[in-house]
Amino acid sequence: MICTPLIGKDQDALVGELTKVIPKQPDLIEWRVDFFDGIANVNEVMDAAKRIKEIAGNTPILFTRRSHKEGGQPISLSEDEVVELYTTVCASQTVDLIDFELSNNPEHFQYLRKKSLENGIQMVASYHNFQSTPSSDVIVQKLTDAERAGADIGKVAVMPNSLEDVLTLLHGTLTAKSKLNIPVITMSMGGYGSLTRMFGGAFGSAVTFAVGENSSAPGQIPIEDLKTVLTIVQRSMGGN
Amino acid sequence: MICTPLIGKDQDALVGELTKVIPKQPDLIEWRVDFFDGIANVNEVMDAAKRIKEIAGNTPILFTRRSHKEGGQPISLSEDEVVELYTTVCASQTVDLIDFELSNNPEHFQYLRKKSLENGIQMVASYHNFQSTPSSDVIVQKLTDAERAGADIGKVAVMPNSLEDVLTLLHGTLTAKSKLNIPVITMSMGGYGSLTRMFGGAFGSAVTFAVGENSSAPGQIPIEDLKTVLTIVQRSMGGN
Repeated sequence: MICTPLIGKDQDALVGELTKVIPKQPDLIEWRVDFFDGIANVNEVMDAAKRIKEIAGNTPILFTRRSHKEGGQPISLSEDEVVELYTTVCASQTVDLIDFELSNNPEHFQYLRKKSLENGIQMVASYHNFQSTPSSDVIVQKLTDAERAGADIGKVAVMPNSLEDVLTLLHGTLTAKSKLNIPVITMSMGGYGSLTRMFGGAFGSAVTFAVGENSSAPGQIPIEDLKTVLTIVQRSMGGN
Repeated sequence: MICTPLIGKDQDALVGELTKVIPKQPDLIEWRVDFFDGIANVNEVMDAAKRIKEIAGNTPILFTRRSHKEGGQPISLSEDEVVELYTTVCASQTVDLIDFELSNNPEHFQYLRKKSLENGIQMVASYHNFQSTPSSDVIVQKLTDAERAGADIGKVAVMPNSLEDVLTLLHGTLTAKSKLNIPVITMSMGGYGSLTRMFGGAFGSAVTFAVGENSSAPGQIPIEDLKTVLTIVQRSMGGN
């Protein structure tokens, strides 16, 4: 599955992005609300969420506040306010999935797990490291933590400093995939890591992020290129 | 670099293949002489070699007798006769490179190393395993053996029985690349292994084999598909 991010700073920008992205037929759209200037105004967020849902139609929407310490934009909300925002968005059922970081306060995590379940919304538990790639064991542990915390999907995004690191991420993905019962989403970022955006799916990553109109993380490639490569990879691997 | 094999059983078939392959602009053409019905007749081989060179023009030619035990066709020649054939082909300078297996008699290997050097022909020392993938250490050792034996290029082709084996091959390639002074050519075969035919170059493999007109080993993909993927991979990896 291919996910394209939206990073518009206001509703007009989001609508503009989405209008260009939808014809490219991503399987999933991620709204990175930390890029949204009106994030502190719950009405503005809800208006935008409804507008996005209208335009996206049947394409599922992943709602994500990426924290500044895990590579997102700085925002003015306290963590309690972020949880309130997620709660309101869940209750509105304008989104299909939420991404919440594993490093968040466990009470916040469990509260939102409850709220998301009540509203039929899937929860992605994520870990990001923009500096380096931890060991394969640590990668597997993060994804195991996601499963143990009750998430529907575990996500790990890490920065490689070598091609060796790219293999470490793929090895961790393979291991987690064989060990866990939930789907996992993994990627290496940056130039080296772009390889995992193209062939990580073969090693067990369920979703790859691609540029529809704008990039939200280093190494994302255009959705058109990604689709071309994925088609050839699938055909080449045949029955495997 | 992309290499396409020729597997014609007679000169007409070879000319037919080559005529279709050349417009697809491979960087290198491998003539798998073990598929050639006239292999026991040195004149027939030399006639075909000259004809191939004429049609190939500036595209370099790799001359390969793949032994039956390393995945090639059964042939009627003794090993001494194979060495004689290679010697004649080297002397004729109708080819640019020869592939000779590391498992051959070391005296034969050194004799052909001498003959190839005398005629300005590069030598690939190769190892194939169609059953399984040895450890990364063994892969590195085979490539180190190629360098120690005086080859210009080391080649390892192995069969993965899992995606883990694909990572092992890529890991061995990375390690050998950082350790050795000669270029290496590596690949996993079969469906899983097709990934390495597309992305192995990023990990240090100098050549990938693709189907121009016919396939010579499991997992090779059409040259058109391979070129498409390699263009996107290079663009995606950017400076890395």
